[in-house]
This record gives sequence, structure tokens and C-alpha cells, in this order.
Amino acid sequence: MFADLDAADPLSGLREGFHLPNGVIYLDGHSLGALPMAVPLRMAQLLSKEWGRDLISSWWRNGWERLPRRVGERLEVLVGAEPGTMVATDSTSVNWFKAVSAALELAGSRRVVLTDSGNFPTNLYVLGSLRDVDVRVVPPEEVVAATSSEVGVVALTHVDYRSGRRHDLAGITALVHSLGAIAVWDLSHSAGVMAVDLARHRVDLAVGCGYKYLNGGPGAPAFIYVAPRHQERFRNPIAGWFGHAAPFDFSVEFVPAQGIERARIGTPHILSLAALDAALEIFDGLDMSMVREKSVRMTSLFIDLVEGMPGFDVVTPRESGARGGHVSLRHPRAAELITVLAGAGIIGDFRPPDLLRFGFSPLYNRYGEVMQLGEALRAVGR
Amino acid sequence: MFADLDAADPLSGLREGFHLPNGVIYLDGHSLGALPMAVPLRMAQLLSKEWGRDLISSWWRNGWERLPRRVGERLEVLVGAEPGTMVATDSTSVNWFKAVSAALELAGSRRVVLTDSGNFPTNLYVLGSLRDVDVRVVPPEEVVAATSSEVGVVALTHVDYRSGRRHDLAGITALVHSLGAIAVWDLSHSAGVMAVDLARHRVDLAVGCGYKYLNGGPGAPAFIYVAPRHQERFRNPIAGWFGHAAPFDFSVEFVPAQGIERARIGTPHILSLAALDAALEIFDGLDMSMVREKSVRMTSLFIDLVEGMPGFDVVTPRESGARGGHVSLRHPRAAELITVLAGAGIIGDFRPPDLLRFGFSPLYNRYGEVMQLGEALRAVGR
Repeated sequence: MFADLDAADPLSGLREGFHLPNGVIYLDGHSLGALPMAVPLRMAQLLSKEWGRDLISSWWRNGWERLPRRVGERLEVLVGAEPGTMVATDSTSVNWFKAVSAALELAGSRRVVLTDSGNFPTNLYVLGSLRDVDVRVVPPEEVVAATSSEVGVVALTHVDYRSGRRHDLAGITALVHSLGAIAVWDLSHSAGVMAVDLARHRVDLAVGCGYKYLNGGPGAPAFIYVAPRHQERFRNPIAGWFGHAAPFDFSVEFVPAQGIERARIGTPHILSLAALDAALEIFDGLDMSMVREKSVRMTSLFIDLVEGMPGFDVVTPRESGARGGHVSLRHPRAAELITVLAGAGIIGDFRPPDLLRFGFSPLYNRYGEVMQLGEALRAVGR
Repeated sequence: MFADLDAADPLSGLREGFHLPNGVIYLDGHSLGALPMAVPLRMAQLLSKEWGRDLISSWWRNGWERLPRRVGERLEVLVGAEPGTMVATDSTSVNWFKAVSAALELAGSRRVVLTDSGNFPTNLYVLGSLRDVDVRVVPPEEVVAATSSEVGVVALTHVDYRSGRRHDLAGITALVHSLGAIAVWDLSHSAGVMAVDLARHRVDLAVGCGYKYLNGGPGAPAFIYVAPRHQERFRNPIAGWFGHAAPFDFSVEFVPAQGIERARIGTPHILSLAALDAALEIFDGLDMSMVREKSVRMTSLFIDLVEGMPGFDVVTPRESGARGGHVSLRHPRAAELITVLAGAGIIGDFRPPDLLRFGFSPLYNRYGEVMQLGEALRAVGR
């Protein structure tokens, strides 16, 4: 059955666009995406031709200055955002800081930020470091009930990094708007593995990371989205020269750039950014609904395989609409099992205290690998 | 004379460690350092072996997790800082934001930040975006007089990006301390071209960029320094998971890391960081006083050459102790001249409204190039 699925998979050819080590089943693309073939080629050109030969002139001649927006344009297509709304820059944590700070200003006098305990820790830490803000952390299933007219900003991660549970982005955003608040979403575990549709769901602000399903490489620059209706009032809490209307005028007064460029701060990390740009080429023209369809099929097959296996508990929701691209299992010896699997060439990851996580990247994972993982788990879990 | 100087130059061999395009005299290393030979080799290994083969395990197996500190350790030697005081991370603007925010907390109730109009614009913008702070901007020559007991933080750039004028880092820091205030220095135009001696001068906090004299590549990660005596009380205004005492415990509560690690925020940009790491190898064992000596000699020779040339005004101080590694000239047709020179293969840069800047990198520039620049200026400046 798995072989048939692979044979019929319309995305199977994409795997050739990645370097994957021999003898390894890599199921950790939700943590670090595999190396796209396009990246080493782009880096070699960047080093020898752009930096090595054209040197400083590359900022204009080779488009370095525009790279944050160029990557942003690719991302807009991927997550269903309006043109002119995204830029690739900084880390996810820094972008989250900008997004939540700006959201609080958009929210006016309401100083309550609602989030949940399933949010990625760095997002909670950043919220905790904001001044004069009342941060309310509720369990994920209580977010809807806790969204009151007191709340100024609802700041959530779309897909839970541990459980794989997915929030109802459309429904929560609509609820947040009906109460006059602002919705900020972290798409780190959803961008590149599903459609997201930021514009259609009228999301206010969003951020996400470039190194998971986007395959941009270790610590790839992150991204930030600001809806067109908020850009005029978006205030970057760190006013840096690359967020200036005319950075190369070197004026003493800060005048924010028009549009999404104002979400930038300092000089872009060109090497990391060029790698992300090259990594995103594989998404060109790709129908994200097909990517999501394969993702759902892989995770469903995997859940079917492990359900009822002694010792394992499936933590991720069974209903496909309520989950992202990875599946988490609870097992009392989770840490040990991940190590044993790695020894056998099957790479997943462990999240304390007792979770095994497996990410299925529709761009390079095969149904056959899902089956092999299932068999391996049956063998080691006894 | 110039040929003799090159023949006798003890640093002349270092030039072989760089890729420099044929037929080009590159005098813009104060803006973007040239490509070190070590970088393409390191990047090839990073891509094929670390990311491509070892994948997620590289965070530990190949030292990615420690890379910000590893680069920090190299930098400590370069700028004369104590062990355990530096980390390479984020952009200069973001580090400046952290440093100044933390300095304000260290300064207690004093909410006045003193800076000067020669500071790099992004630093002024960041200061202007801080809340509840009284920012005083004075001309560079008035900094000493304006340093009063009202001031909590004196935040300056060591070497002026336009004029090349250097502040008396030791004297101003001592004055600042005598008044109970905190000194924050931006070393972007001094790190890698002189000794700096942060520890000896008891600097409180410092930042700087990795892509000028450090040759880390376009938009290389920046650095931040926190003196040992302040680390315990250093509060990062953006609490991110990589500044946590145990990032991989994924705990909900933020506990800052001990020591300089708390100055980190998000996931490090490994590709850009590895390039900077490789670029710094050339400094291993290098005596920074020799680097400075060659720098002074080159800039002195250049100033001697252009002094009195019709149309040109030397903006940079004649006294070597009062300048950094680049020399700026004023000329009414500065923008045009820089373009004409570039056409002849001599790369400097233009800063509005009327400055030509030339940076002399002691690691790869030759005395002969100083002479050729002088001759070219004489020809085009008429």
C-alpha cells in the first residue's frame, strides 16, 4: 500500500531537490528542514561572484538590499498573504517582539495580552519581558473562552510545537476581531506545510521561522507579516536604519519606510538570507493544497499505524483539521527510544519529559518511510 | 618608497588569505571586508557535512549551539575583553538596543542618555525609539562638557563612520564612571583595525558589526560585550529562548542564562555565523598593535599625499591618535569622483553630501595601493 502511495504521489519528484544522507530516514524537518540542492549552488555563487568579485557593489548590483523583500514575496505566495506584506529578517523571537509590541499599540488602551501555555517558550518569555502589560496564559483549550473585550492582543502559535495540535486560526481571528482586539500568529510550525491563508482570514500580524518546513538552513532568518490595513500605524519598537524610508541618506531623524520595509531593523544577514531564498525556489508554482493533502495523508497513516501500539499514546489530534505537519507520541521511555531509533538511522526528536516527535515533510518524505517508522516503533516500544 | 614599505611589511603575507578581484584596488573594507579564503571552505563543509549529512544533530555534534560563544571568544582576544564577556548574535542595531536598554537599568533612576550627532544613524534611531528616556544629542566635540551627573548613560560610536574621527574611549569612559554613569560603545569602525582594550579601559557595554574590518561577510552577525561586573544585573529587553539558562528544557518560566549567554535572543543564524567564525581565523595569534601600526602608517601616508591637493579637504584628524582606520575627504563633486574611480578599478565610497571615504585594511591592503589612490585622486580631482 505504501509503495503504491509513493508511486502515485504527485510530489514524489521534489525529493530529488534535496540532499538526504544515505541510509537515513529523516523525520525531523519540523525542527531543521533538509538541505535543498539549490542552496550550495547559490552559496557558491554568492561567495565567489557577489562577495568575492563584486564586493560592496553587490548591495545594488546583485540585489542584496532587496533580499529581505524578495524572500518576503516568495513567502507571501506560500502563506496566502497580500503583496507587500512580508519581509524576511531577524529571528522569530525578535519578530515576535516587534509584532506583539506593535499590536499593543494598535490595541490602544487595552493592555491585556492573551496567550496559551502551548505557545513556544520563547514567545512566552518575550511576552513576559514586555513592560506595563498584563499577560494571561491559559491552557490552549481555554483560549476561546478567555477572549474577552478586556483583551487587547491575542498572541498564539498556530501549530503547537509539542502536541502538533492546531488552533482554529480563522475562527479565533474572527472572534478576536469581533471583540475589537488584534490577532498575532506564530506560523513556525505551519508555514510551508499548509496553505495558512493569512489574507483570507484577515490575520493582523504574523511571524514564523525559516528553518523548519521552509528548509532555509540552521537559524535561517525568520519572517514577519503586517496586514496592509495596519502598516501605516505599525510602529517598530526598534527603529533601525534598514527600517528607515531612506537608509542611505544617513539622516539623523528617523522616518519609517512606507509599507512592510518598516518592519526591518539592521543590516540583513545576506548569507543566511540567500540560502533561504534558494531553498524557497522549490515551492515556486507548487499548490499548497497538494502539500497539505500529502501531509494529512502521511500523518493519518502514521496515527493509524501507532494507535493501539502498547506503550505509546498519540498526543496529536486524530482529526486532521486539528493538527499540523508533525505527530507526537507519549512514551515513558521517549528519550531512550529516540536514541535507539537514531542508531537505526531514523531521526525524530525528543521533547521533555516524555514526547517523541516525528515531522513529515511532504516535499521529501515518502509514505514508505512512514511505514518503516511504524515498524521500528513496534520493535523498540515493547 | 611605497614598494619598500610593502617589501618590509610584516603583515604582507596575510593578503594571500583573501580573494581579491584582479585589477581592483579595494578600499572599502570599512564598509564590507573582502572575502577570506577560509570562508568558502568552511561554507562548503557546513553545507555538505553539517547540514546535509549530520542534520539536526549538528547543533551538538558540530558545535552550532556554541557558535555564538565560539566567535565571541575569538572577538574577546581581538578587542581586549575578559573571557566570557562577548557573544556574536543579531544585528548591531538589535545589540545596541539591548546594550542601551540594559545600561539604563544599570544607571538606576537617571533617564538621560547622552550621545553625539556623529553617531551612526541607526544608533540615534534606536535611542529615539526608547520609551521614557531623555536623549541628548550634542556635537562630538561637546560630549565631554555635556557629561554631567544627570546623565545615566553615555552611548557613543568609537570611530565616526563619516569623518574617521576617534573618540577618546579611555578618557571618556573614565569620566563617565567618575560621574556614576554607564558607558556604551559601538566598535563597528574600530574592531579588527586596532586593539580597543575594553577590559583595560573598564568599558561597561559594547557592540559592533562583523562585516567591516572583521571580514565576516555581508550582514555578518554583530557582537555584544557585557563587562563581568554587570553580567549578573544585565537584563536583556528581549527575553528569548537562547538567552535562557536551559533553552532545551522548554520551560514556561524564563530564567536568564548565567554570564554573557543571556545577551542572546533567538536561534543563531548559523550560515552567517560560521562565515564570520572562519573569517576571524586570520586574526589568530595576530598582534593587534602591529595591525594598528600598519593602519596608522597607511592613513598617514594617504593624508600626506592628499593634503594640499586642490579641491580636496581632509576631514579626518591629522593626529593619528584621534582617528580610526579610514580617511574621509570632502570634495564638491564627491559622488561623481567615487564613480569615476570605480570605473578605474579603485573602490572607495561616498557618503552624502560631499564625502569620499577610503578604508585601509591592514590585512590585505598594500602601501602601493595608497600611492595609486593618491595618483588617481590627483588626476580626477582637477
